[in-house]
Amino acid sequence: MYSEKHHNQFKKFTSKRVLITGGLGFIGSNLAISLVKLGAQVTIVDSLIPEYGGNLWNIQPVREQVHVNISDVRDEHSLKHLVKGQDYVFNLAGQTSHLDSMTNPYQDLEINARAQLCILEACRQQNSDVKIVFASTRQMYGIPEYLPVDERHVLQPVDVNGINKMAGEWYHLVYHSAYSIRSVVLRLTNTYGPRMRVKDARQTFLGIWIKHIIEGKPIEIFGDGRQVRDFNYVDDVVEALLLAGLSEEANGEIFNLGSDDPISLTDTADLLLSTYGSGIKDYIPFPPDRKNIDIGDYYGDYRKILIRLGWKPRVSLHEGLKRTLVYYQEFAESYWEQGAIHACHSVR
Amino acid sequence: MYSEKHHNQFKKFTSKRVLITGGLGFIGSNLAISLVKLGAQVTIVDSLIPEYGGNLWNIQPVREQVHVNISDVRDEHSLKHLVKGQDYVFNLAGQTSHLDSMTNPYQDLEINARAQLCILEACRQQNSDVKIVFASTRQMYGIPEYLPVDERHVLQPVDVNGINKMAGEWYHLVYHSAYSIRSVVLRLTNTYGPRMRVKDARQTFLGIWIKHIIEGKPIEIFGDGRQVRDFNYVDDVVEALLLAGLSEEANGEIFNLGSDDPISLTDTADLLLSTYGSGIKDYIPFPPDRKNIDIGDYYGDYRKILIRLGWKPRVSLHEGLKRTLVYYQEFAESYWEQGAIHACHSVR
Repeated sequence: MYSEKHHNQFKKFTSKRVLITGGLGFIGSNLAISLVKLGAQVTIVDSLIPEYGGNLWNIQPVREQVHVNISDVRDEHSLKHLVKGQDYVFNLAGQTSHLDSMTNPYQDLEINARAQLCILEACRQQNSDVKIVFASTRQMYGIPEYLPVDERHVLQPVDVNGINKMAGEWYHLVYHSAYSIRSVVLRLTNTYGPRMRVKDARQTFLGIWIKHIIEGKPIEIFGDGRQVRDFNYVDDVVEALLLAGLSEEANGEIFNLGSDDPISLTDTADLLLSTYGSGIKDYIPFPPDRKNIDIGDYYGDYRKILIRLGWKPRVSLHEGLKRTLVYYQEFAESYWEQGAIHACHSVR
Repeated sequence: MYSEKHHNQFKKFTSKRVLITGGLGFIGSNLAISLVKLGAQVTIVDSLIPEYGGNLWNIQPVREQVHVNISDVRDEHSLKHLVKGQDYVFNLAGQTSHLDSMTNPYQDLEINARAQLCILEACRQQNSDVKIVFASTRQMYGIPEYLPVDERHVLQPVDVNGINKMAGEWYHLVYHSAYSIRSVVLRLTNTYGPRMRVKDARQTFLGIWIKHIIEGKPIEIFGDGRQVRDFNYVDDVVEALLLAGLSEEANGEIFNLGSDDPISLTDTADLLLSTYGSGIKDYIPFPPDRKNIDIGDYYGDYRKILIRLGWKPRVSLHEGLKRTLVYYQEFAESYWEQGAIHACHSVR
């Protein structure tokens, strides 16, 4: 899975105690599986809020080898206990939906900002030597002023989610500068792959596209489809998280992820359809509530993490989509909206 | 008080309904007095939390001409009522102490971030035509990368207060871009003048300096005193707030304030001592908890507000300090720490 060099580095996780917040979610579960394979002792915290990414099926391959603690990162008291004795915290719990952040801004604030403060306070008070890797987002750059976007780009979020993630991220940086907590921030771009939420577009539009294509429904593109994005396959993101976890020089730093092949939404849809072998796409007008918070074209400059940590994405979009389609064809029933299926049944 | 041109503009506030959050505080009370003189119908919201800037004495000159509503901006329900029917909201309520934000980060978050969201949600739901002027801070720039700092400078707050104020500020900007709420942001630098909190350094170190000099105590300078700052006299800041309130082209924009004469802390202390006519200064080592969140030299570039809104500071530091000293010599008893005086008495 990893390059030989990285594989040798990653052996340092053997027998290490690792806490993953949001560990039943898309990226968290993939990370948990990797860490178990590396011999780490993994504890997962997840709230299993239905609208979020948590899904017990996600950790099915390692179900007996991880400790699962169902709780909410907004729960200060359980966190204080859970961070004790950990060598690493991979802090991946978050509310990811931009639209939900506008309709329910307080919940987004509680999870993406306040809970992050709770996690950091718990670490500062109970385990100040722990290493924390925070999964942040390119969302806070807002509408790019130049491309590719590097870490020096101004922050000008276009939605409440971007603002709260920005606050959550900066708590990690201030707890490093003010208290020497060993924290590092990765700003993720569009991540996709097995175990992502596909029942709707709350996590990524690629999720619902993949579900629709497998169901034989058209995939919907907002606007003219010319918006450019960059995509990372989840295994590449897991590798970045592990590298950031091991690097001491990364502490207090922000790193963008990114890919070598930015691509328009139309071309992404075409690649997905050709990879699958069939299907159609529909262009529909931008829904106003999405248009108001759209960021236009985006792709990230990942040279900093390449130079400093030796990371680069290795899985092409074509290969990644293929693996993803195979996964969801096999495990559709664990990811499709149960409520919707029941609703259909009751209509008959 | 104002230039003739601005004075004519400001007549537009006559008979207008204005809500000032934090209106018993330093800047809010000065603004309230100005607006009453301009014929506005002013409602003040203030929580009178003892550690903050609220002080009923501050509005003594207009006590009978304003409506005072003692409540907390964290109280969503009272806000929903209070914003109704207002033409303007000057949103000045905040927790200003950097040190307090580190020892009590949750309270800082509740006031500087969550309550701002409440205010904006209240306006969006109850009064979406209202104009909102938000008092933000240069604190979120962190340690400057160049001087003077303009609005394009990267945001890299060094303490929890800077992060939460950044979030609170950006809610205002996103509610403009996503919902067309007419909001504008001023990033204030060190503001001083009559009605500032002087019983401690929670609001500004100039406050405690002025108290100490009047009490005949030495004023304390942290470190070598070479740190450079810029200062705005409160009347100039009030003028900027009023201009921002009246300008439609300011909506969705951020404006730095600043001054023409950045000055070191040592020179500020010397100017204060020479203006007063006596007193001494002491250099003491930087307390570690302050050093960790110090920003080094700072002064702002205010050309954007000069060009776009015609604002510039008009009161020199010498003149402003003179007026401030006169005020606190006359009204010391309303601003000195009552608790401390009692404590002294009981020790005898």
